[in-house]
Amino acid sequence: MQIAIVLFDRFTALDAVGPYEMLCRLPGAETVFVAQRPGPVRGDRGSLTLVADKGFDEVPAPDIVVVPGGPGQSAQMENETLLGWLRTASATSTWTTSVCTGSLLLAAAGLLEGRRATSHWLTLDGLAAFGAEPTGERVVVDGRFITAAGVSSGIDMGLTLVGRIAGDEHAQAVQLMTEYDPRPPYDAGSPEKAPAALVDRLRAESRLVLR
Amino acid sequence: MQIAIVLFDRFTALDAVGPYEMLCRLPGAETVFVAQRPGPVRGDRGSLTLVADKGFDEVPAPDIVVVPGGPGQSAQMENETLLGWLRTASATSTWTTSVCTGSLLLAAAGLLEGRRATSHWLTLDGLAAFGAEPTGERVVVDGRFITAAGVSSGIDMGLTLVGRIAGDEHAQAVQLMTEYDPRPPYDAGSPEKAPAALVDRLRAESRLVLR
Repeated sequence: MQIAIVLFDRFTALDAVGPYEMLCRLPGAETVFVAQRPGPVRGDRGSLTLVADKGFDEVPAPDIVVVPGGPGQSAQMENETLLGWLRTASATSTWTTSVCTGSLLLAAAGLLEGRRATSHWLTLDGLAAFGAEPTGERVVVDGRFITAAGVSSGIDMGLTLVGRIAGDEHAQAVQLMTEYDPRPPYDAGSPEKAPAALVDRLRAESRLVLR
Repeated sequence: MQIAIVLFDRFTALDAVGPYEMLCRLPGAETVFVAQRPGPVRGDRGSLTLVADKGFDEVPAPDIVVVPGGPGQSAQMENETLLGWLRTASATSTWTTSVCTGSLLLAAAGLLEGRRATSHWLTLDGLAAFGAEPTGERVVVDGRFITAAGVSSGIDMGLTLVGRIAGDEHAQAVQLMTEYDPRPPYDAGSPEKAPAALVDRLRAESRLVLR
């Protein structure tokens, strides 16, 4: 079972590594980090580099596709090499998945038309322009497409997918081995739970960045 | 504020990237992945490679030290280059932290003697041999040492440390930007919560591996 995790310049590290850490524990899993060109790919903070072991052309038909997000996503929205690979790889994949703004890349490739999907809370509205139906849920399964919300939600998405593929007992073993019994020290992880003033401030700041 | 994240052959990816994703969002943070020699370092599953930008000798006095764990930890327990660096770096650091079996490396360096500390639930008992006091808590703060339990607990540790350094409001902003509102699809993330038969099986399997 080949699992291809897409990398591009300025991806968000946890978007990619969260699902990786769950999915690499599937029986018979072969995970591969894949990019337009093989080699080092820099994350969004300039201090983390993951290596893409293969180029897109070397991984034409993975069983599972994982697309992370990050500030670098916007520069890929018209990259036909990446979008074209997402289309052909998804045509034969069992599951095609995304984390955070990775869903906007799936949407730009035309893969989420008419589907329910999610994204980072700050970019959720952007899905509608591509014919997807945005939902604020943390993990959205629509057919063989699974989209996850911001950054850390890829862990929940990955574990959900492990359960679908290998069954509940194996997924519970993965959860126990990764001690995924989260205890956030605050309760501000979604716009519904965070203080309203904080939500407003981050929304305003993101508009300035996106302008 | 320089944050050094230690890499070694066969580290567990999420142990390193969980805290990274939180701590890199501290104001003025400069994160650096550091290893005995700079260059690519392979994770524990043979399919993920993170790049260490600097060698230990280039990062003599970081403000924060983060030590991940993973199956490769046992091969480092007598590596005096790594243990010696942990000692000197910790002598001047503001915070020295670990995730998973990374605490055994801190313990082997003599840094946890007389301190309360945690580790992956399967290796918790190993701390006592080095004079540390094992506790099953998810995140343990003892003085300027913070140890976290298995794999995913590094996210909670990282966010806790962000709050201590930059205050609750900044930590909440980091939590909201990373949408850290976890919803595990199962409730088997600790030996107390998982089915007893599963805990017993994983314990027996780990004894075979460790023998």
